[in-house]
Amino acid sequence: MADNKDKFVNQIADIDADYTQWYTDVCLKAELCDYGPVKGTMVFRPYGYAIWENLQAEADKRFKAHGVKNAYFPMLIPLSFLMREAEHVEGFAPEVATVTHVGETELSEKLVLRPTSETVIGNMYSKWIGSYRDLPLKLNQWANVVRWEKTTRPFLRTSEFLWQEGHTAFATAEEANNDALEMLDVYSEIARDVLALPVFTGKKTEREKFAGAVATYGMEAMMRDGKSLQAGTTHYLGENFAKAFDIKFLDKDGTHKYAYQASWGISTRLIGAIIMAHGDSRGLRLPPVVAPVQAVVVPIGATKNEKVGVASREIYDKLIAAGVRAELDERDLSPGFKFNHWELRGVPVRVELGGRDLEAGVVTLCRRDTGEKMTVAMDSATDTVVKLMDEIMNGLYASADSFNKAHVVEVKNMDEMSAALDGGNFCDAYWCGDENCEVEIKQKYAATARVFHADQTGADKHKCVCCGKKAKHRIYFARAY
Amino acid sequence: MADNKDKFVNQIADIDADYTQWYTDVCLKAELCDYGPVKGTMVFRPYGYAIWENLQAEADKRFKAHGVKNAYFPMLIPLSFLMREAEHVEGFAPEVATVTHVGETELSEKLVLRPTSETVIGNMYSKWIGSYRDLPLKLNQWANVVRWEKTTRPFLRTSEFLWQEGHTAFATAEEANNDALEMLDVYSEIARDVLALPVFTGKKTEREKFAGAVATYGMEAMMRDGKSLQAGTTHYLGENFAKAFDIKFLDKDGTHKYAYQASWGISTRLIGAIIMAHGDSRGLRLPPVVAPVQAVVVPIGATKNEKVGVASREIYDKLIAAGVRAELDERDLSPGFKFNHWELRGVPVRVELGGRDLEAGVVTLCRRDTGEKMTVAMDSATDTVVKLMDEIMNGLYASADSFNKAHVVEVKNMDEMSAALDGGNFCDAYWCGDENCEVEIKQKYAATARVFHADQTGADKHKCVCCGKKAKHRIYFARAY
Repeated sequence: MADNKDKFVNQIADIDADYTQWYTDVCLKAELCDYGPVKGTMVFRPYGYAIWENLQAEADKRFKAHGVKNAYFPMLIPLSFLMREAEHVEGFAPEVATVTHVGETELSEKLVLRPTSETVIGNMYSKWIGSYRDLPLKLNQWANVVRWEKTTRPFLRTSEFLWQEGHTAFATAEEANNDALEMLDVYSEIARDVLALPVFTGKKTEREKFAGAVATYGMEAMMRDGKSLQAGTTHYLGENFAKAFDIKFLDKDGTHKYAYQASWGISTRLIGAIIMAHGDSRGLRLPPVVAPVQAVVVPIGATKNEKVGVASREIYDKLIAAGVRAELDERDLSPGFKFNHWELRGVPVRVELGGRDLEAGVVTLCRRDTGEKMTVAMDSATDTVVKLMDEIMNGLYASADSFNKAHVVEVKNMDEMSAALDGGNFCDAYWCGDENCEVEIKQKYAATARVFHADQTGADKHKCVCCGKKAKHRIYFARAY
Repeated sequence: MADNKDKFVNQIADIDADYTQWYTDVCLKAELCDYGPVKGTMVFRPYGYAIWENLQAEADKRFKAHGVKNAYFPMLIPLSFLMREAEHVEGFAPEVATVTHVGETELSEKLVLRPTSETVIGNMYSKWIGSYRDLPLKLNQWANVVRWEKTTRPFLRTSEFLWQEGHTAFATAEEANNDALEMLDVYSEIARDVLALPVFTGKKTEREKFAGAVATYGMEAMMRDGKSLQAGTTHYLGENFAKAFDIKFLDKDGTHKYAYQASWGISTRLIGAIIMAHGDSRGLRLPPVVAPVQAVVVPIGATKNEKVGVASREIYDKLIAAGVRAELDERDLSPGFKFNHWELRGVPVRVELGGRDLEAGVVTLCRRDTGEKMTVAMDSATDTVVKLMDEIMNGLYASADSFNKAHVVEVKNMDEMSAALDGGNFCDAYWCGDENCEVEIKQKYAATARVFHADQTGADKHKCVCCGKKAKHRIYFARAY
């Protein structure tokens, strides 16, 4: 075992010494993904894609419970559509991929690959919405989007990524803004109950908001290096796109009004969040709800003892029957190799069965989150594994939550901020609200305003962390992915 | 009712008089889809997309039962990749959309939007496959693809469409060819058990095969005008892409060999097949397995009789509890309007409940496929609806199957073929195997070879339908979408 362990540790970089390399190693060696042939593109390998499928299913049912229906809109959008909303085009134009030709023929109009779909959906909504009876309209699509990025990293930032984008329209501003807030709650529920991720949620600053929104709300997850990952955003769009695309309805009072809109999205970035927030020196630690394999059965010495193989398959069959996503690893390889293989892949529970266990009528269960080993009667193995699924969800959440709490530092001035950031922390700070201070912080420390703090009580009794003038807001600053 | 009926019939074109317009009317008025802003693109509206989601779920579980795993590959492919397989580029180059710029910057290499993914997946397989232990490799992706078409029609032919594409690699030619044949069986099982569609399956001619394949197998569905719709294809690719992308493995015998491949796909075209094969003068008739709404409860006179509303909701709740995708139509509109609304949308069963029914303790069930009405005790309504789901699947299948059988005509010469085609039939013909005859038939009658007949016994005892020389094959010719 010791030998195997050492060999294994060498397979991926040391998480404490080189977090960046550790991340890349885990992505590639756990076979979550690979690099695509075009720079900045990536391939979702089956193990990585299965995480996305599980996450999709969980998110989709929550959206549907919220009255949202799925649809699908064209990926190709006339470049002229982007131009109609001034801030939107400014934000997205530099990174849109443009289709100019089909075969040898030049197109009469330039088309862009959707970086997001407010414009093309706005165009359809103007056609579909005529009366207050058509509202609210709440549609979502699961789709690929393209944003050309200079620096890319698997899952976190790639030219093409997969996401869902919800687009809603309402008769009043209040309903639309509420939708953005409610979906932020749905997102943080998904983070908690599906990904075991405690998150920081709140409004974003003007500088950090979505290009074309009136207000953006964000969900930020803390990674193990104390940097923030924007894990989901919801936007209150006001009448901005309704005016650009003429989305009007005849209200009950007989007058024509512009609809108010919201939009919201989460993406395959969340897989990056899972890797970085939960991973450890041995690789992935996957939350059971999204784990493609929730339990792996490893027979020990089955080649010498046929009964071990038979009993292992029985355990596997029972797990499957109980609805556990189980694997039986019957490969002709050493137990140590198999342990490492499945630990790297973050499988929540390993079930070991050897000849002596069999005689004693027991199996050994090993939790990936804590490393804890327990011996249980063979009869109760399935029930215990099922129970462990919840316990591991809670354990991973609690562990990430403690980490978060230990890495938020209150800072009163720039020196404290600098030290806190370099120590791998979020900064809990007060800010005057002046964009110049935001810019100064970014230039000096490469940190940005993430979200406003949920508790703004007495913020104006404090001083701005940057300029020292009277503060207006309590807000989190952090370095971010 | 009579009035409503007449009004309704006027909403969509007469299926017998103008099948093409009828199709467009059904697509738009049943709110399955809409036209996108860019010519040739379409929007999947929620009702149409829900059919696709149901079909996806059914197909996906059958693929997984076949040992196939899902993955996701980049949409953007270097144009140079297409060039590597001579026939492939010839077939696809004229219709590929090309990305040349990002923002204002010209890309150093032209990228195409995938028309299909053999090339980009071949590139990855060459990286992942090293030994016979890595085979077979069976991956599938659910994705959007782009093929620029001059003439487009909703679902049938659009610049962008949704599909699944399976890509497999094996150590031997036999296994790869078998995979293509097995997946053709899976497809026809899906057609039968999910879409209630009887199909014609078999090998395609050299002229009709996929660009880059050694052999293509097709599944053809007959539409109500006697034209064929290619509803799915599977391809045996031989070593063609393995040679182009250097997919080699070290075999057990210690030598390096090229892998043998297959690929297979079905698309949102199948929604078009459902519409055209099952639809009637009143609109859609949806197979229950894919119907977004399987049963609609329509209270009659609920505004005057509160008990009707309450009892209707109870029936609705029971249907939902029994796993039926049910709707309760409580809108303040006339029953006739509602009947038409849901008939146009093809909902398999309508449950009507009025005051008199309530007193008698019964409900009226109306089957969309046959129009048959039945009165059943309220207590057994749910069970009857559940049973009807299977009966309607069988009924739709049987009805389409009779239609198919009545519209296959054996033809011995060109005059007979011409008459059969004009009469809205498939031609069961003998053919010498010479491509010139295929071309002549296409030029004269706009019909193409669809698939070889399953029974080739004694084909050489017949004469070619076109040139009159000794025949080699029994084959279906038809006009096609």
